[in-house]
Amino acid sequence: MRKKHIYLDYAATTPVDKKVQKAMLPFLRGEFGNPSSVHQWGQKARAAVERSREQLARFLGCSANEVVFTSGATEANNLVVQGITQEKKKPHVITSAIEHESVLAPLEGLEKQGIIEVTYIPPGKDGIVNPADVEKALQKNTLFVSIQYVNSEIGTKQPIWEVGKILKDRKIVFHTDAVQAALYFPCDVEKLGVDFLTLSFHKVYGPKGVGAVYIRKGITLRPMLQGGGQEQDMRSGTENVAGIVGMGEAIQEIQNPKSTIQNIRIRQLRDKLIEGILKRIPGTTLTGSLSNRLPNNIHLLCEGVEGKDVVLLLDQKGIAVSTGSACSERSQEPSHVLRALGYSDQEALSALRITLGKYTTREEIEKTLKALEQVVEQLRRKT
Amino acid sequence: MRKKHIYLDYAATTPVDKKVQKAMLPFLRGEFGNPSSVHQWGQKARAAVERSREQLARFLGCSANEVVFTSGATEANNLVVQGITQEKKKPHVITSAIEHESVLAPLEGLEKQGIIEVTYIPPGKDGIVNPADVEKALQKNTLFVSIQYVNSEIGTKQPIWEVGKILKDRKIVFHTDAVQAALYFPCDVEKLGVDFLTLSFHKVYGPKGVGAVYIRKGITLRPMLQGGGQEQDMRSGTENVAGIVGMGEAIQEIQNPKSTIQNIRIRQLRDKLIEGILKRIPGTTLTGSLSNRLPNNIHLLCEGVEGKDVVLLLDQKGIAVSTGSACSERSQEPSHVLRALGYSDQEALSALRITLGKYTTREEIEKTLKALEQVVEQLRRKT
Repeated sequence: MRKKHIYLDYAATTPVDKKVQKAMLPFLRGEFGNPSSVHQWGQKARAAVERSREQLARFLGCSANEVVFTSGATEANNLVVQGITQEKKKPHVITSAIEHESVLAPLEGLEKQGIIEVTYIPPGKDGIVNPADVEKALQKNTLFVSIQYVNSEIGTKQPIWEVGKILKDRKIVFHTDAVQAALYFPCDVEKLGVDFLTLSFHKVYGPKGVGAVYIRKGITLRPMLQGGGQEQDMRSGTENVAGIVGMGEAIQEIQNPKSTIQNIRIRQLRDKLIEGILKRIPGTTLTGSLSNRLPNNIHLLCEGVEGKDVVLLLDQKGIAVSTGSACSERSQEPSHVLRALGYSDQEALSALRITLGKYTTREEIEKTLKALEQVVEQLRRKT
Repeated sequence: MRKKHIYLDYAATTPVDKKVQKAMLPFLRGEFGNPSSVHQWGQKARAAVERSREQLARFLGCSANEVVFTSGATEANNLVVQGITQEKKKPHVITSAIEHESVLAPLEGLEKQGIIEVTYIPPGKDGIVNPADVEKALQKNTLFVSIQYVNSEIGTKQPIWEVGKILKDRKIVFHTDAVQAALYFPCDVEKLGVDFLTLSFHKVYGPKGVGAVYIRKGITLRPMLQGGGQEQDMRSGTENVAGIVGMGEAIQEIQNPKSTIQNIRIRQLRDKLIEGILKRIPGTTLTGSLSNRLPNNIHLLCEGVEGKDVVLLLDQKGIAVSTGSACSERSQEPSHVLRALGYSDQEALSALRITLGKYTTREEIEKTLKALEQVVEQLRRKT
């Protein structure tokens, strides 16, 4: 990371942990075999991939053969959504109105084609989906429910295990996108009661280009990438060995007891910054829920300014924050998440997301507070 | 690469070039931004991705906005096959019987579902598809033709430009899988006359987990991975920045004039090995065409032995070769390519593929010849 510069956009992507880098390097050098090759180069690559799979399975509390590696969360979400819904004729699907685009877009596509029927549950103003609303939305032909674990913009955590309980006895398959949750909340698939769970590793100090999906044993899913039959025929294509090895190391680090201490420190810094902002910058509101929230997330509405202007001016001061999800940041449309929460377009466009990480320091937080105060004042003076 | 060990399976995967490694490292370290982020971390990542896209576009002789990055060739082939054929109702598709599984499997899947109709052109005994056969197979509803540039097993090169000429006036879209060709043959999309072209970078001294597809401007393709709208909405998902940067460097290296000299050296070593094998090991036959062939490929049938036994015994001597395509090597079924060429199952199971690369030395070739002679003799004595 550049010195003197302050990165507070950990929800968009994270730096690669040094241990992860170190673990990856041999597989970008001498250990370059194709895991499908029979000879020793292939065997070493295969062993490395399977070791990472075991590491991830321990994290998820599942069997190694229930883990499928993908190129990222977008592929994982598309695989689940497109794979499960095309197994039956015109099934009913329930999701929330604030899912990531990689869940919503394929669902909307299939809905438009008349292949599925979808109910979009609106969350409360606090950004939380009420499990009772999911229960009420159930139909006889409900096949599949997809509710994210944590929202990537406002950082609110959904009561996944409660939804899981409701669905379990009904034999409805349940998916959660746990991309933003994995660093901070437990991801045991049994406790959560999910049948599918999506992960992305560049959000957890791992490399870009690697994701995974947990697929509960016994559930049939139509594969999207067909060919050589890798990943038990669920995802063909030569494995990204270095990336998968890096992923394994990143997952080990999450489980390191030091992470818990780190997360407490992050929460304290985050709370200090929230307190400072709300106290020193009038007309700012924290969205969502403070208690059911990622410990590293701040998401504000900032009266009388546009979030994108704040992002640009802070960037000029060497501070990186965002208006919301990186994926949709360039579109400059008001966020679908904030709209679903009932905010006006103007309110939604005033949004600012500040997300901390393990390299964030107290000094950075203090500098950011000061800079944000200046920037908002400057922008408000202009209008 | 391990010293004393001999790697002759470059068609399965290649080591990562040192220049490629070097180019990737900063993006696994300080330059970790998400290319969709607005701030400077994002801008630097975006600039790196777009620079690589320009490099690849120059290699392909196309515009940068006609290049879509994927997680590999399997995804690229699936994107084209599934994307184009679902745009119209029950179109007719022509392909060869010896395509890679990532073309054949999605085609066969769509055919079984009754979504498309497919003609599989058998190649001649030399492994070459006759363009006249493609022309004869054309129907009024032919929408799409997919013929590989070079076969991954037997290394034969197809007359893509001739097929391209036939299809051009008929406005039929034409795809070629150029994965195995890119290191050795020109990939100018205009000269080839193709509308889609697939590449994989771990086959050209680049990293695993990165591929690309050329999509001719103006052609509509249904995207497979939907979500954040990256890659002009053709392939959502956070870009594998380090991998894409490595890809760019690998492509630069292919265009380095030194590569041409290297390829001549590889061909000479390959020819020496073929000559040695055919002279010293009785009952060996070279498959396919010697003239229309990758300069690094040897593919043999070896009477009275099974290829997999040869692979295992050579592996014990530290020499890595394969029986055919790595993707299907573990299945131990006779190769669909050799079956399509008219070989019996027994003949197909006697296949051995030896593929050279830029790190192959004369000494390695001599050792391999000696070892192969011993191994075949040993196996024949047993039976």
